[in-house]
Amino acid sequence: MKSAFYAGFALTYLAAREKFGDSVLYYPQTTINDVFDSVEKGDTTYGVVPFENSTFGSVVTTLDRFISSKAQIFAEAYLKVNHYLLSNFKFESIKKVLTLHYLTLPKAFGQCQKWLDTHLKGVQRIDTFSTSKAAELSTVEPASAAISNSICADLYGLNILAKDIQDKKDNTTRFFILSTNSDRSTENDKTLLLFTVDHRKPGALCDSLRIFKDNNINLTKTDSRPSLQRPWHYVFFIELQGHKDDDVVKKSLEDLKEFCLDLKVLGSYQNQLQD
Amino acid sequence: MKSAFYAGFALTYLAAREKFGDSVLYYPQTTINDVFDSVEKGDTTYGVVPFENSTFGSVVTTLDRFISSKAQIFAEAYLKVNHYLLSNFKFESIKKVLTLHYLTLPKAFGQCQKWLDTHLKGVQRIDTFSTSKAAELSTVEPASAAISNSICADLYGLNILAKDIQDKKDNTTRFFILSTNSDRSTENDKTLLLFTVDHRKPGALCDSLRIFKDNNINLTKTDSRPSLQRPWHYVFFIELQGHKDDDVVKKSLEDLKEFCLDLKVLGSYQNQLQD
Repeated sequence: MKSAFYAGFALTYLAAREKFGDSVLYYPQTTINDVFDSVEKGDTTYGVVPFENSTFGSVVTTLDRFISSKAQIFAEAYLKVNHYLLSNFKFESIKKVLTLHYLTLPKAFGQCQKWLDTHLKGVQRIDTFSTSKAAELSTVEPASAAISNSICADLYGLNILAKDIQDKKDNTTRFFILSTNSDRSTENDKTLLLFTVDHRKPGALCDSLRIFKDNNINLTKTDSRPSLQRPWHYVFFIELQGHKDDDVVKKSLEDLKEFCLDLKVLGSYQNQLQD
Repeated sequence: MKSAFYAGFALTYLAAREKFGDSVLYYPQTTINDVFDSVEKGDTTYGVVPFENSTFGSVVTTLDRFISSKAQIFAEAYLKVNHYLLSNFKFESIKKVLTLHYLTLPKAFGQCQKWLDTHLKGVQRIDTFSTSKAAELSTVEPASAAISNSICADLYGLNILAKDIQDKKDNTTRFFILSTNSDRSTENDKTLLLFTVDHRKPGALCDSLRIFKDNNINLTKTDSRPSLQRPWHYVFFIELQGHKDDDVVKKSLEDLKEFCLDLKVLGSYQNQLQD
């Protein structure tokens, strides 16, 4: 039976289940890097990691790991994030709210700022490693509640005190399913690649983007991260419409090599985004 | 006397002091957003916020606030980050290490991973809001040490158990000094701007970058963040060489308006980076 490792966050597990259902065995890993390790070593068929959130942007741990990883993106998955207030205490007795520092500071607090300011004004707010960890800790911490999700309510036997407490109702997280290969080409694919440009060549990034424009290839996301080779030098990430085996994409990637260094295709996958 | 607000992290205070010395009064604020608030309301002459780290990339809270802020960048400052292990306990008795979740997970732990794995293997690691908070908490937490910096050793009366424990020795954080106006043009300036592109126009980002290339303007940084107007739609940040009052920059910004929406100049400031 095929197997999937996922980073030890309940949401990543949910995303993995949406993709694979009962067709694979699931193994939690502590960190995003552990998931990459497992896929690269061949300990598992798939790995599931968060990539970006519609409100909070890219998951930098995932971007950074792609720079050195041999794993390929096999598929993408989108999951709407609904935050719940979970606790085994009465609402009136709550003195502490626990939640995550998972994507960026003050993430979940920021996501639920209005609700907290209205319903739990002045209550102490405590950072945790993940929404799952928040739920787990709230089972032992007196007078506490966790901002977490429905799956954690089940996992840790917590009562749901309030549903959908996030400020933005269209808050979605996008996940990548990693493997050793990409999926085959369909009519509606996307491809993620990374590259650096020669910092002594002005306009190299512009020249790189122009190749896609000239070939009528749409870009769906760009991002950058420190290259770690030298300070203030960046690795660029570009996601484009098309599959790496499509002729026009292949040609573009050949042309791109002229303008950039360290070009790496991270994978092609069917577009799951309903526009 | 002029005054400067800074986000309540010791490093931001150090950066502010490097810039202003004894010429201003300093007021700590709890969060980056509080600093922006103070500057926008005119409660203070300057505000100091972290912008990016050479290892960990952009501070997304700062980028996101720029989208709606009226504050202008007045100057930039670079500060080398050296991590220290601070404690009032004996090294042998340390059971917990506290440090921050300030820029990204697992930041300071990641930055000091090798040292921790060698010298404090298996010791519990606890997340805190900042390196300053870690130092403060370690004064009351039994058998604990904080990963923090020299100024916090002084502030909280902690002993320095180890110096320069970070993995990367060229780890630098860049700060912005905010005000209501930019500084005047010198021979060596940079300008930060943000814009969105019409997602129905393919290649609009490419067209935008080409304007700078055609005008021989170097780009020193690009970044993007979710626009929050619609999911998977981004705001682009571009930093270029030159001052917004320079003729060639003025002309480029005029041309740029054709290809992008919501163009905003966040400020011009003297380049402090020694290349």
